[in-house]
Amino acid sequence: MRTVDLNCDMGESYGVYHLGRDSDIMPLVSAANIACGFHAGDPLTMQTSVRMAVQHKVAIGAHPGYPDLVGFGRRSLAATPEEVYAMVVYQVGAISAVASAAGGRVRHVKPHGALYNTATQSMEIAKAIATAVRDVDDSLILYGLSGSALVTAGRTLGLVTASEVFADRTYQPDGSLTPRRHEHALIRTEDTAVLQVLQMIEEGTVRAVDGTFVRIQADTVCIHGDGVHALEFATRLRSALGHRGIAVRAPEASR
Amino acid sequence: MRTVDLNCDMGESYGVYHLGRDSDIMPLVSAANIACGFHAGDPLTMQTSVRMAVQHKVAIGAHPGYPDLVGFGRRSLAATPEEVYAMVVYQVGAISAVASAAGGRVRHVKPHGALYNTATQSMEIAKAIATAVRDVDDSLILYGLSGSALVTAGRTLGLVTASEVFADRTYQPDGSLTPRRHEHALIRTEDTAVLQVLQMIEEGTVRAVDGTFVRIQADTVCIHGDGVHALEFATRLRSALGHRGIAVRAPEASR
Amino acid sequence: MRTVDLNCDMGESYGVYHLGRDSDIMPLVSAANIACGFHAGDPLTMQTSVRMAVQHKVAIGAHPGYPDLVGFGRRSLAATPEEVYAMVVYQVGAISAVASAAGGRVRHVKPHGALYNTATQSMEIAKAIATAVRDVDDSLILYGLSGSALVTAGRTLGLVTASEVFADRTYQPDGSLTPRRHEHALIRTEDTAVLQVLQMIEEGTVRAVDGTFVRIQADTVCIHGDGVHALEFATRLRSALGHRGIAVRAPEASR
Amino acid sequence: MRTVDLNCDMGESYGVYHLGRDSDIMPLVSAANIACGFHAGDPLTMQTSVRMAVQHKVAIGAHPGYPDLVGFGRRSLAATPEEVYAMVVYQVGAISAVASAAGGRVRHVKPHGALYNTATQSMEIAKAIATAVRDVDDSLILYGLSGSALVTAGRTLGLVTASEVFADRTYQPDGSLTPRRHEHALIRTEDTAVLQVLQMIEEGTVRAVDGTFVRIQADTVCIHGDGVHALEFATRLRSALGHRGIAVRAPEASR
Repeated sequence: MRTVDLNCDMGESYGVYHLGRDSDIMPLVSAANIACGFHAGDPLTMQTSVRMAVQHKVAIGAHPGYPDLVGFGRRSLAATPEEVYAMVVYQVGAISAVASAAGGRVRHVKPHGALYNTATQSMEIAKAIATAVRDVDDSLILYGLSGSALVTAGRTLGLVTASEVFADRTYQPDGSLTPRRHEHALIRTEDTAVLQVLQMIEEGTVRAVDGTFVRIQADTVCIHGDGVHALEFATRLRSALGHRGIAVRAPEASR
Repeated sequence: MRTVDLNCDMGESYGVYHLGRDSDIMPLVSAANIACGFHAGDPLTMQTSVRMAVQHKVAIGAHPGYPDLVGFGRRSLAATPEEVYAMVVYQVGAISAVASAAGGRVRHVKPHGALYNTATQSMEIAKAIATAVRDVDDSLILYGLSGSALVTAGRTLGLVTASEVFADRTYQPDGSLTPRRHEHALIRTEDTAVLQVLQMIEEGTVRAVDGTFVRIQADTVCIHGDGVHALEFATRLRSALGHRGIAVRAPEASR
Repeated sequence: MRTVDLNCDMGESYGVYHLGRDSDIMPLVSAANIACGFHAGDPLTMQTSVRMAVQHKVAIGAHPGYPDLVGFGRRSLAATPEEVYAMVVYQVGAISAVASAAGGRVRHVKPHGALYNTATQSMEIAKAIATAVRDVDDSLILYGLSGSALVTAGRTLGLVTASEVFADRTYQPDGSLTPRRHEHALIRTEDTAVLQVLQMIEEGTVRAVDGTFVRIQADTVCIHGDGVHALEFATRLRSALGHRGIAVRAPEASR
Repeated sequence: MRTVDLNCDMGESYGVYHLGRDSDIMPLVSAANIACGFHAGDPLTMQTSVRMAVQHKVAIGAHPGYPDLVGFGRRSLAATPEEVYAMVVYQVGAISAVASAAGGRVRHVKPHGALYNTATQSMEIAKAIATAVRDVDDSLILYGLSGSALVTAGRTLGLVTASEVFADRTYQPDGSLTPRRHEHALIRTEDTAVLQVLQMIEEGTVRAVDGTFVRIQADTVCIHGDGVHALEFATRLRSALGHRGIAVRAPEASR
């Protein structure tokens, strides 16, 4: 049976500040990427998120970011590979203990925001992240943009990787995402988005903005965790996947 | 053979800021309590400290504190037991991953500064800390002031504990430390300090400020990590311990 | 004509995190206490808040707090008077420049959360805050709980002060607020709350929980900025004040 | 009489962490750029620094940086011009109040580290900084690298600017600094460094690495505040300036 993972960023509240509809979205996904305190998330929030994931049998992921709470980890930061290595080790460790104390276990790591984007193109940063993951626990699955340096770096180091695709973003002929500032970067029709996902899973291709078909690996689909539309879309995507006999399931490590 | 542990707070640098003479003191102690990023320490500093401890075969400890970098974790903070529980889990997890990535393993947990002091008297906070330690890894050894609520809480939860004593502080008839603001709080003569430690280890007693002898358990002695005198004193204490046939060795978990 | 000030804490968002219904509440109050980056607020949020206050001709206040974003400045912190002095100077300066750059001017200072509460009872901390305010700009008005050490400290130093009262809190026979943990701490009926405010303004008294009448000075009423009920209550209170011929107006400095 | 300004970054300690030899270097310079809490500096440290500057009649400058304490503001951060504008306003305001409370007054603004470097080349960021300075107080003098976008932006907005030169850095034929990673980036001979400064002041030129002479404006020379050599060099430079009849004096605003 064909399977796909649906992942969502969660636990991005901070202290009194609430962000995301985690309790609504948790039942709809198979993997939760939980913020680790650097771009969002505080120890109590992490605990709440992990417990919710345990309860819903959703795979727990570390979601490490740059230390930039005010910028929500979305701003590129010129950290060295050594700094990135150390900050990923630290954050994965923190969420691992929170998970463990809640009777759960971290299964995967997906970098956040600007760190994710940097690791898409910079092999140096990608290696730093992948090495950190391996050095903490080499059974962890590394999530990265399909076709990215991060996925390559993870595989090279022997990690199981999950190639991530986006339902609501258009692709370039080289398989990269159309930058958000471009006019046609976003897919605004739910029908089109659902069809794009189905095609990526079933055909292993995506139709790029120039009309050409590009090969793409779709192990996991990123689901947004905020807004009414996100919930509706997730529900609809799950339904479409069900009709096509595609099970929603987190990836499994090789051992 | 009688043994005692010598422990020292380490890894309290932060970014470009350097604090402590870690490389000088590391060879003299059996246990290093390494800051975890909340009151001091950043991921790279933690990594450096852990690697140094591994190299010197010094037991690695988590040294969690309040999230108060500017106050160095020395200021009492009215955090709830739930917040304390979560912040200890988080910090122990972070240093555990750093240790693990460096080929080491966290063996003990010693709270820092105001968190340590609060856990001396508040059973509620002591329980929160001890429960956090147990929930992350119940083979971790919990360090607390000899006779403190923290040691009691740890034992009650089934943790191995290490009762800590101070060489350079005087004691009250009830076994508590003389508050620093008092005139005779500090022992300024090295001879007296060494003798106090020997007596605590060999006799299980300490002479209080009123001249009475008080029972005290001395599993581990706190060594300061800064200043020329600290190094000299540590060297001298080790020498005195050697002459009395007392081995310097980190405590061992029961399993 | 009798006047009273209605003040509300604002600008407590942080980065992507949104808190409070500032744009709804701004037209209803005469004074906005704007967070200065320590317990909440970031430079851009402060700018937005200040501009909104300028637009609505609402008096701009500094709302300094303890450096505790994750605890939202609600947790007591054992900062020294020297530290409190310096952190208040810093925060008042920061918001002053933001106000000035937006064509406004800071008119008052109201400490936040745990800092406010500490300054209610601790004359040492109250003096530190009042001295900081005076040293930055002695024409600033200091807001404090009616009858508090903070108001006393401000007056002693020659500052114009504004005594703050609460519509939805009950009072003790000594004029202090009933602690929140007590059963009858909150007034849950809007009618009662409005009447309490009117009586405080017109009679200068409040009926304490034991039925006795206590003298109280009501220069400014604290309006909450979150929740639908807060908005409704503010609207209703303004209406009641209007019917009694009490104008809503920020206090004026003596020069 | 010819004059030149000697400026030094100061107040870069943080809490218990000590950095820089401020008390040694203060008597040797005419302008102190004081960290404002984002890349270094805390309210108490700022207060100490400002008081020292007032005592030595050294011009007080704001030294705003990126919010990156762990990276000491040396890491490039993709903050938007709006964010940079707001963070500069905030920091200039904070130090202004600290100065004012200490009987001093901020005279200039010099961005720190990565923010300084970004403003050298990015006109967008340079404008954001210059506009922030102007909006807070248009009598403030803006310090920037000689020939930089920052100096141009400041002048365009009508600010008095001070063009900064370096004694121990070599220059490219286009007047820019040789990047640090290049072999000949640093001048390691004190004689050469002193001569370079004298020539920049007296001739308005500097000999670039290719032997050509480049025009350069030298209003202020950056003095390092750490290390024994820095102190010796500052002393020696002052002496050389004295022999040439060049007075060390902070620049003056036009009004």
